This record gives sequence, C-alpha cells and structure tokens, in this order.
Amino acid sequence: MNNQSTPYMSRDVDTAAILARTEPVVYDQPGTPPPGAGEALSAAQCERYREHGYLLLPQLFAPEEVALLAEQSALLRARAEAGAPRAAVIAEPGSGALRSIFDVHRDDALFARLVRDPRLLNAARAILGSEVYIHQSRINYKPGFDGKEFFWHSDFETWHTEDGMPAMRALSCSILLTDNDEHNGPLLLMPGSHRHFISCVGATPEQHYKQSLQRQQAGLPDPVLLRYLADLGGIVSCTGKAGSVVLFDCNLMHGSNGNITPYPRSNVFFVYNSVDNQLRAPQGGQPPRPEHIAARRYTGPLRPAPLA
Amino acid sequence: MNNQSTPYMSRDVDTAAILARTEPVVYDQPGTPPPGAGEALSAAQCERYREHGYLLLPQLFAPEEVALLAEQSALLRARAEAGAPRAAVIAEPGSGALRSIFDVHRDDALFARLVRDPRLLNAARAILGSEVYIHQSRINYKPGFDGKEFFWHSDFETWHTEDGMPAMRALSCSILLTDNDEHNGPLLLMPGSHRHFISCVGATPEQHYKQSLQRQQAGLPDPVLLRYLADLGGIVSCTGKAGSVVLFDCNLMHGSNGNITPYPRSNVFFVYNSVDNQLRAPQGGQPPRPEHIAARRYTGPLRPAPLA
Repeated sequence: MNNQSTPYMSRDVDTAAILARTEPVVYDQPGTPPPGAGEALSAAQCERYREHGYLLLPQLFAPEEVALLAEQSALLRARAEAGAPRAAVIAEPGSGALRSIFDVHRDDALFARLVRDPRLLNAARAILGSEVYIHQSRINYKPGFDGKEFFWHSDFETWHTEDGMPAMRALSCSILLTDNDEHNGPLLLMPGSHRHFISCVGATPEQHYKQSLQRQQAGLPDPVLLRYLADLGGIVSCTGKAGSVVLFDCNLMHGSNGNITPYPRSNVFFVYNSVDNQLRAPQGGQPPRPEHIAARRYTGPLRPAPLA
Repeated sequence: MNNQSTPYMSRDVDTAAILARTEPVVYDQPGTPPPGAGEALSAAQCERYREHGYLLLPQLFAPEEVALLAEQSALLRARAEAGAPRAAVIAEPGSGALRSIFDVHRDDALFARLVRDPRLLNAARAILGSEVYIHQSRINYKPGFDGKEFFWHSDFETWHTEDGMPAMRALSCSILLTDNDEHNGPLLLMPGSHRHFISCVGATPEQHYKQSLQRQQAGLPDPVLLRYLADLGGIVSCTGKAGSVVLFDCNLMHGSNGNITPYPRSNVFFVYNSVDNQLRAPQGGQPPRPEHIAARRYTGPLRPAPLA
C-alpha cells in the first residue's frame, strides 16, 4: 500500500467523512495466531473485542505486582523531575506538572519485562494474529485536582497520517496503576466506533507532536460524526481497580474527562503493532515523528518473559 | 453577628483551617417549619439531608414540565445570543459559548413560577425552617464537547465572605433539564463535607465575581483538607434523568468535571435563603457583588404557586 492509495485519507481533505472498516479486528483465523498465543484469551473474549473494540481484564496483575510497578514508576518520575529536560518527558499544559514519560520499555528494565509478560504479549499476539513489537510506550501520571481532559480521537488516524502505519493491525494496552472510578477522569470509549474510520479536515501543523501530546490540534473528529458514533454505541468509562488492564483497538474512538478529584490516575500505556504492519513514510511528505513516539528502529518481535 | 466576630474567617487568614460546624443543617424542630412545608419531605429524607448534606429527588418534574422548561430555556438562550451583551449573561472561558443566564426568577415569568412551585419551595421551607427568598438564580448551559470543569468549593465560603451572608441557612436546588450521567460532567459532591467549614488562604481580588463565575481565583480549598474530606465521606456524582432535582446544603463541598461527550448538560439553579439570614456587608469592606449574583433587594418571602 503506498500513501496515494490509502483508503484512510485524513487532514488533506475538504470535508469530514465516515468509512466502514473492511479490515479484520481480530486476526484469529485458524493457523494465524503464533504459538502460545492461543490460550491468552477465550473465544468469548475475542468475540467481545471484535464487537466492541475493547476488552477490560479486571485485576490481571496482582497487588504485589502493581506495587512493584507503581514504585518503579514513582522512581522514574522523581528522576525525571530532578533531571535535565528531555524529549521523552511531557508536562501538563498550564501547571507544568509531569504528565508522561515515553519509551519506558527501552529505558527501564522492569517495563522492558512488562511488555514481554505473557498475559499482555500473548493477548496482543492472539488479537493481532502475528508476532508483535512495541510502537510506543509510556507511563501517564494524571495528577489529582488539575488533570486535564483529552479530546476524542482515533489513535490510528494519527498513526496512519503522521507515522505511516499502513493498516489497523495494532492495539493499545493500558495497565491501571491506581484505582479508576467514574470520577477521576477514566478512559472513555465509544464501543463499536472501531468499525468506522473518520477522516478529519485540517492540515497537520509542522512538528504537531510537540503540542499534540498535550492537546491535539489536527485529527479532531467532526462533532456531528462523533455524536453519530456515540448515539450508535454509547459511551463507557473504563473503571477498575489498580492492576486491571484495558486492551483496545487502534481505531477505537476514545478520550478522557479531566480530573478534579484528589486522586491521581496513573497508568502504563503500550502500543503493540503487528510485525507485518511496520511504519512506512508519513503522509504528505512530512518528516517522521521522533523515535520515542513512533518506533522505526525495529529490533525483532517480542519474546515472552514473565514479569517477576 | 458582625464581621469581626464571625467564626468563618476566610481569605484574610494566614493558613488554611478546618472548623466543625455547630449550626443546624435541617431546621425541623417542632413548630419551626412554616405552614404547608411539613409534607414536602419525609422524616427519612430530612435525615438523609442532615447526614449527607444533599438529597436527590429523581424525576420530580414530569416529562411535559421538563419539555416546557427546556423550551423556555432555549428561547432565553437564543435571545441572549442575539441580544446586546449584559451582565447577567456569562460565557464559557475560551470558546465564548453561552454558559449561564442569571436572574431568571425575576426576568422570566415561567422561572418566576418555578421558584414558587410547592415541590421546591416547600422542600426549601422545610429544611430551612422558615420563609425563604431567592438569593441567586440561573440557567446553566453546559455545552457538549467542550464543557469546562469547575473546581471544588463551598458556596457558603463565597457567600459569607463576598456577600455577607451571616449563617449556613441557605440551600441550592439544581433542576436537571437534560439527562446527567457519569460521563457528561455531572455535579460532584463530597457527602458529609457540609459539617466542616474550610477557611481558604489568599485575598479576594477586586471585582473577583467577573472571573469567579468562570473560574474561581480565591476561596479555593486547601488540597490536603480536600483530600481529608474526600477520604472521609467519598465523592458522589449526581446523575439522573431530566426532571430530577438535587437539593444541597450551602456549605457542601462540590464541583464538576469537564464534559467532552457530545451531550450537553443543562440545568436550572436556584439558591433559597432563609428570610432570617439576609445579607449584611461583605467582609473586609469590599463593595457588594451585583444584584443578579447576590440579591439584596428584598421583596418579601416567596408564596407557593404551582408551575402549571
């Protein structure tokens, strides 16, 4: 597929449009998932993922594992706050508080193991039906009292346009490090929206990624189409105890409200991409985004290794 | 009570503090509530209000009444948007979209009847144990997609400091004109927080009301004390169908998250104050806030009159 022939034109278009997805959501044809992946999810779980575009796995990680991850995440935060500014560390708009640290699967040994943990890795391999690698990783530190909202978007719209990801054969995986309830700005999803691609009007500003990690300015879906998707499948909050995991399709419409509660909402976020879906050139001759946002330095498929 | 002797010092103080409330919450001693008020709420409802500081009355208004109120509210909105700017009309920060219209109980015949509707008026008289009048009224038009959050605050902290309201003998009444669910930025309350007064540090800026209706800059509770109150009694969302009503104590800590959903969240908001609790001079020699924000032009107690 070259960039001229993509069905998913976005941004360099005159009007917003909605396209029905023709690609698979779950690549579970017999013989497709690689060895060992088959047992990660039940047939019913795969079916739910296929229909709704996401799967919530309550308390997949045990409290002692969560404690370990939270401790390491606090250490990385303290180091980032004490250290020199660097590209992989993103601040909240306004307050300047730490928002995210990217690339933790390459920079930290514990998170490097976490992406290989069979509970996550085999679920990704089962859904994507192939070997996989990490397209992006980060820890999100959503502070209490002043957590900012994040507007609706499809990640794939950005990854396809700005990163040259060819197909919808990628998924996001969010591991909750704190309890998420309906009040503290949990992930909001539109179930079923992954079966539509919304192309967005408006050109991509140069070096858009420098702002878009705080607040997107391009790739914003049309309000009428968003309303259509919300009326169609509703909106759900991904609430759960710490240690729960949400897997969601790269084209699922999602966002989050702000957080005025005293309770922070921290999570780890990995994007698994099929090795058969590696990045090409971004649309429209734009330069590629930095390596910590969109991995191009391919080092082979991930091999399972338990966390602890 | 003169301003020097108030137990509720706030803003002109050096450190945040928390005081136990000594005043009643419900004024239901025998003989206290005025005639006709007694039947508005059950003893169990009064007890819930006393303990938690609020009461949710699901679908108190029938769908045809809600339709009438929503229609009139849309008409007032269209007039306000077409008309010259005026003080009682408040815009959203940033987008400039209409946020609130104040003083609707004086400027509009339907809302003038609504404040007198026995279901609301007698509930207010029953809780406040006296005749009552309106301290403030408004319609809130919380838009979809871009509704802004409103940080935690006690209304009484502001009304006492900026308006000279002597005691905690007032209540707020929110009538839902749209369905409120957990996603579209419903009112968030901290149950039980009305039994504590939090004094806030920081002086009140001149003409603070011009900003505070969009975003408060003074009267912001200390984060440690907010966390204390949230740990103590939790946080609840006031969700409900259109036509539901929330009554809450003037000193209850409340706020709301933003709203990125496509669904607006509109409500009517009345503050009933006891006729025995009329405003005095604001703290610290500040000039009074405008009449549409804090009524000083007293025209006697409200008399019941059904809405339709």
